[in-house]
Amino acid sequence: MQPIHDLAATLMRRSDELAAHTEEPGKITRRYGTPALAEVMGIVEGWMRDAGMQTRRDAIGNLFGLLAGPSDDCPRLMLGGHLDSVRDAGRYDGVLGVLSAIATVEVLRDREEPLPFAIEVVAFADEEGVRFHSLYLGSWSAIGALPPGLLDATDADGITVRQAIRDWGFDPEGALEGSLAECEYIGFVEAHIEQGPRLEVAGIPVGVVSGIVGTRRAHLDVYGTAGHAGTVPMADRHDALVATSEIILAIDEGGRSHENAVATVGEIAVRPGASNVITGGARISLDLRHPDGAVVDELYDEIRTRSAAIAARWKVDIAWRTGQKVEAMSCDDALSGALAAAVEAAGHEPVRLFSGAGHDAVAMSRVMPTTMLFTRCKGGISHNPAESIASEDAAATIDVLVRFVDAMAAMHGR
Amino acid sequence: MQPIHDLAATLMRRSDELAAHTEEPGKITRRYGTPALAEVMGIVEGWMRDAGMQTRRDAIGNLFGLLAGPSDDCPRLMLGGHLDSVRDAGRYDGVLGVLSAIATVEVLRDREEPLPFAIEVVAFADEEGVRFHSLYLGSWSAIGALPPGLLDATDADGITVRQAIRDWGFDPEGALEGSLAECEYIGFVEAHIEQGPRLEVAGIPVGVVSGIVGTRRAHLDVYGTAGHAGTVPMADRHDALVATSEIILAIDEGGRSHENAVATVGEIAVRPGASNVITGGARISLDLRHPDGAVVDELYDEIRTRSAAIAARWKVDIAWRTGQKVEAMSCDDALSGALAAAVEAAGHEPVRLFSGAGHDAVAMSRVMPTTMLFTRCKGGISHNPAESIASEDAAATIDVLVRFVDAMAAMHGR
Repeated sequence: MQPIHDLAATLMRRSDELAAHTEEPGKITRRYGTPALAEVMGIVEGWMRDAGMQTRRDAIGNLFGLLAGPSDDCPRLMLGGHLDSVRDAGRYDGVLGVLSAIATVEVLRDREEPLPFAIEVVAFADEEGVRFHSLYLGSWSAIGALPPGLLDATDADGITVRQAIRDWGFDPEGALEGSLAECEYIGFVEAHIEQGPRLEVAGIPVGVVSGIVGTRRAHLDVYGTAGHAGTVPMADRHDALVATSEIILAIDEGGRSHENAVATVGEIAVRPGASNVITGGARISLDLRHPDGAVVDELYDEIRTRSAAIAARWKVDIAWRTGQKVEAMSCDDALSGALAAAVEAAGHEPVRLFSGAGHDAVAMSRVMPTTMLFTRCKGGISHNPAESIASEDAAATIDVLVRFVDAMAAMHGR
Repeated sequence: MQPIHDLAATLMRRSDELAAHTEEPGKITRRYGTPALAEVMGIVEGWMRDAGMQTRRDAIGNLFGLLAGPSDDCPRLMLGGHLDSVRDAGRYDGVLGVLSAIATVEVLRDREEPLPFAIEVVAFADEEGVRFHSLYLGSWSAIGALPPGLLDATDADGITVRQAIRDWGFDPEGALEGSLAECEYIGFVEAHIEQGPRLEVAGIPVGVVSGIVGTRRAHLDVYGTAGHAGTVPMADRHDALVATSEIILAIDEGGRSHENAVATVGEIAVRPGASNVITGGARISLDLRHPDGAVVDELYDEIRTRSAAIAARWKVDIAWRTGQKVEAMSCDDALSGALAAAVEAAGHEPVRLFSGAGHDAVAMSRVMPTTMLFTRCKGGISHNPAESIASEDAAATIDVLVRFVDAMAAMHGR
């Protein structure tokens, strides 16, 4: 067996190798159905085979590698991540889950005492949803929960999901049916970079995820009255941008007033948008998240109430367009407890932290016990070329996963 | 002599007729150098001749009509406005000054007792500056104050001012030399719609302009830190849009804290501008105006100081890009006094009001006594198809101009 730090060095080198496969030279961009993603799928499939796994692709193109257990229909423990990326991405988001799972299999493969279950490593083909503005296309398809209507969604060039699946060499109708094996799944564990600064601040390499935040999104339109910036006295104005500015501050304050909540306005557009014209109309986006879905709803209602009061004071009208709502997800207690024990056994303080971003674990939690392990990332930066992890933290990730598998093996009667 | 209300009806009809000449069907748009503006110049030249005036075009294409006085080199009194427009304009901005001047000449022409001076009516060819983002191209050229470098300024298609003048059939080098006659100018009076609500609120058809506000423009860049809307805790954020929102409120409050000041943010743009990303950078425009230039400077400094404090509190950086500065202009005391007396003689309360917008009067005031008469406009709306004046208010405008000319004639020894 290779020492963990050698496996970690390999993981870091493999991450660099995958980063070179991209749609956009000089940037890391791998969306669903692209040649760049097909290339990394092929490379990773080779590494899975080298690690002793049997591989298969499912009907949407997800890649699975199986380290066989004592029988064909024995229980399986699933580990993994995704290989698609956002535009101009970092090299670890998604990739770390896949490569740390392969490294874990490399440790387990040569054991004299075999595991009482199979290990299945998954590399999902679309988690970021960049091309079709969809959520978890890969994992939804794997669990058979892809809404049939989604096959007709189109990308910026008008190509449907159906056509993209077909063009990539796979089977759109099959993608609706699910691709997990007909056996017991002990659970799914996804290792992932934290994408936030909390582990770095705490000085701990890995942490157990307690759950994934619930999210509510909306757009707010503010209707004021446009006018000449020189001739309309201040007292007669109904400036949509001024009212919107106060609403943005109220949203920020709302986020701060609930522990662990985040509230973000990332988009703003104004009409007519000329320096010498008072703003007649403004539109902003709203993104609210909290580990407890009830708090998300409470905060959303608070913001609506405060915005209405602000609008009344400025004598402008507002209209809400409710957007995507994603329910909060709690990680499985037993699986998370075993993972925390593995973290502690590896010599680290077993902190729990929630995830502010969505992950394939949300989909997988519908069909099996699910948890996640976060790995410290530099400055909390993600979705950015500056995304960075330390090789020692990759080693800690692999170490914890191996200890976790061993603990599960002990529980399942090795 | 026609009754004033018939002349006003003609003025209203002529405004409608000119409105039909446009670059954009369904909208009123007449920028410098376009066929639409050439057409209305031709039509107005015909009306000037019908009113007994000799006409001429100068080297940039401004149109002049002269109602001759007792001698070729006698003093002249100038009246007028401009015939170019903003995009999707109203039908009275600029046009009212030209048509009310022609109507005034029609009243004066047939008098048994001739005037002791000539009347010169001007229709400037570019006041709005839409095409070249310039100020008062027409009147600056008329007074010989066009900066030579401005000939190299380009429009959105890369066409220079020099080329545009030539393409319109005129003479770019001549446009630098000035085109006023070599005689004494008694003064320039520009009638114009108010473009604000004060006369309507006061219930008075016309008002004398005391001066034109000074203006300072700038752009402000705010640099924060972009980040994932789900994973960066509120306490760790440096959200450029939140800081900018507080600055916008401070700018609005600054405008309100000085009587007669206006402060406007009409443009905002954010980077990267995605609903799930914290704003890394924001840019806003700033437009400050006050009748007293010293107050504009004071307000500008106040806003810079407050913005710096806000930026420090949010831990973001800011950078100012100073823009156009237009000095405040005070109307000539004697000329404004005579105009106010004419307003009173016509039976209206002689209110004085400042102009929040710039006008050709700013340029003309450099070379001769200058004042302006404002005409009530519906809802204070301008630069908009909804721009509207009452025929009775057009009549009041002509009536006051005629009484003013009579008073000036009495002073100049008729």
